[in-house]
Amino acid sequence: MHSLDPVPHLTRVRRTRPLVHNITNHVAMNPMANVLLALGASPAMVHAREEAAEFAGLADALTLNIGTLSPHWVEAMVEAARAASAAGTPWVLDPVAVGATAFRRETAARLLEPGPTVIRGNASEIMALAARGAGGRGVDSTDSSEAAERAAVDLARRQAAVVAVTGAVDLITDGRRLARVAGGHALMPRVTALGCSLTGVVGAFLAGAEDPFEATAAALATYAAAGEEAGKRAPGPGSFAVAFLDALYALDEATLADRARLEVTDAP
Amino acid sequence: MHSLDPVPHLTRVRRTRPLVHNITNHVAMNPMANVLLALGASPAMVHAREEAAEFAGLADALTLNIGTLSPHWVEAMVEAARAASAAGTPWVLDPVAVGATAFRRETAARLLEPGPTVIRGNASEIMALAARGAGGRGVDSTDSSEAAERAAVDLARRQAAVVAVTGAVDLITDGRRLARVAGGHALMPRVTALGCSLTGVVGAFLAGAEDPFEATAAALATYAAAGEEAGKRAPGPGSFAVAFLDALYALDEATLADRARLEVTDAP
Amino acid sequence: MHSLDPVPHLTRVRRTRPLVHNITNHVAMNPMANVLLALGASPAMVHAREEAAEFAGLADALTLNIGTLSPHWVEAMVEAARAASAAGTPWVLDPVAVGATAFRRETAARLLEPGPTVIRGNASEIMALAARGAGGRGVDSTDSSEAAERAAVDLARRQAAVVAVTGAVDLITDGRRLARVAGGHALMPRVTALGCSLTGVVGAFLAGAEDPFEATAAALATYAAAGEEAGKRAPGPGSFAVAFLDALYALDEATLADRARLEVTDAP
Repeated sequence: MHSLDPVPHLTRVRRTRPLVHNITNHVAMNPMANVLLALGASPAMVHAREEAAEFAGLADALTLNIGTLSPHWVEAMVEAARAASAAGTPWVLDPVAVGATAFRRETAARLLEPGPTVIRGNASEIMALAARGAGGRGVDSTDSSEAAERAAVDLARRQAAVVAVTGAVDLITDGRRLARVAGGHALMPRVTALGCSLTGVVGAFLAGAEDPFEATAAALATYAAAGEEAGKRAPGPGSFAVAFLDALYALDEATLADRARLEVTDAP
Repeated sequence: MHSLDPVPHLTRVRRTRPLVHNITNHVAMNPMANVLLALGASPAMVHAREEAAEFAGLADALTLNIGTLSPHWVEAMVEAARAASAAGTPWVLDPVAVGATAFRRETAARLLEPGPTVIRGNASEIMALAARGAGGRGVDSTDSSEAAERAAVDLARRQAAVVAVTGAVDLITDGRRLARVAGGHALMPRVTALGCSLTGVVGAFLAGAEDPFEATAAALATYAAAGEEAGKRAPGPGSFAVAFLDALYALDEATLADRARLEVTDAP
Repeated sequence: MHSLDPVPHLTRVRRTRPLVHNITNHVAMNPMANVLLALGASPAMVHAREEAAEFAGLADALTLNIGTLSPHWVEAMVEAARAASAAGTPWVLDPVAVGATAFRRETAARLLEPGPTVIRGNASEIMALAARGAGGRGVDSTDSSEAAERAAVDLARRQAAVVAVTGAVDLITDGRRLARVAGGHALMPRVTALGCSLTGVVGAFLAGAEDPFEATAAALATYAAAGEEAGKRAPGPGSFAVAFLDALYALDEATLADRARLEVTDAP
């Protein structure tokens, strides 16, 4: 076991101000843009098929979120993903509610093909993706956190990607290594699109990073630290959302170093 | 005249955390999701024709809002409404600016057909819907609040639905009974999509309710109480929006019981 | 050189509550609606081709923003622009990231044809538009603020429009006169869609105005004054966005008169 320092990664994001291209859902577009600006990155939301692939070629990172799909967007996502992979641009897949409908399952399967650098979801979403690839078997473990870990490691190996499972404690794996991030705050699930916005932050941390596993873990640690800071000042979800942006903007390296609890072990 | 207690309805929503499926306008998606999360419900925004009907079958309630239409969405709304009605899932129609264009009038007419459980709008919208159904006659009462009441009762009877007219004082009727909800705050119309978000809250209160009239009145009373609480702390519309989410999250049963002024009479 | 008083323009907006029709990007829809409501105007977001032109005929002003295009929206924008121009309704073009992709360049060219009353963008966007019209020559001045001024005056003359270039100091010209607006706050670029929302505010100030140049300058001066007020109370971008809406809502004529620094000179 060794520990991983997120500080140099945050410093890199703030110094390079990466252009992060996002095709995300309608609920998340505005908060994600605000989160990326507060972080110091440069967000762009571009989803028309007529320009998505062209724009993906200009960006430093790409993120795709299937929260509010339409057929036109699905094609734009596929083309943007291919353009990013062809250009060596890192990209993140956020498979929102992938288990809910056939349309989502099919779209997610098409998006796995061009090879996301990172897949970020909650435990159910990651388990649904992992189960599908394994031939449709259900995930029936009674220990859901253990099942999520198993699913994440399997999916990471099969996809040769980093997989991040976010929840009360986050888990990041590349199939070989495994990190956990504690922190955050109980109000975070009460603010819409904070998870989706984190996908954008992962994109920002991937830009220019040498090791996507370390960059992803650093992104999650930064997010959790800002969440903890915000939680100190917020009595409810409305004020939490405001305080979170302020905290992410103001987060200094000493606070991040102090709060980040990032232990890396071998994946099971 | 008797009075109606909204508290058991709020308690039910918080206990059951209903999944509310919304096809709403682009302005409202984010605040509606935040309002539903603050309330304790579980929001989902799913509007593609490829999955809307399938998803409506999974949800505990459905809400449809015609604020920012497109042809693809109209078809998805019609299919979702039919799926909800077929499954016995309660659903709410929010006919935003229905009088403004032919496209809106036609869409609203198509959505009235599968039979919404509740129709929620402002006085002009409800009067426009009621007038249309009556063969196009204008609403020319000089007393707009009386005209709105007349229109609401007529529409409720014709549609066999609950009709809620929201404004400085809200009015709820099922054609037989009539309730009024006072409260709220003068800043509420200065925050965009608070009315649209209320439609989502009505959806949450309908889930698992025995009496849609009572559930709708309880939803409006809860909203008004949170608005009054928020108004105590907010100097302007920006801080009001934040305080409103905090107030809805924190609203306790004693405060709601204390503030809610819900008198039920016979409809005229 | 003479000075221009923005106060009567703000008074007119608040008195007449103009209906401003906006086809704007997904990120900006919600904050723009909130900004227009805080100002005292009446926003409407209507983008379906089936109703956009009809609605543009009802509105007091129209604004078009190419931030998140789709083919369906482009046609609706073109039709709305033509309807507004035919009806003598003032309208504003916001050419977001026009230089980034071919789709944006083509769309902007189509939207310049029906003749916007005002074009509002940042320096790169205005320079990209001006360069394109001049036959594609690059803008290679080493003095970017001088280059932006040159581009703005050229574009204003060619289009017979008002051009507003916003940044740390804003510049407004109709090709004959030139005004500068100082103020605002360093946190403004850290809040998403504040520039896009300003386009809506320009629309509100154009409604019923005799001189679009003066109305545009007054809109920018009002915005900058609200930004300065907000900056006094906000430690970060989350609280800034909230304070900005409160400040715009509360801005009184004395504060505006006091802060607005609007000098008008002849255009070079």
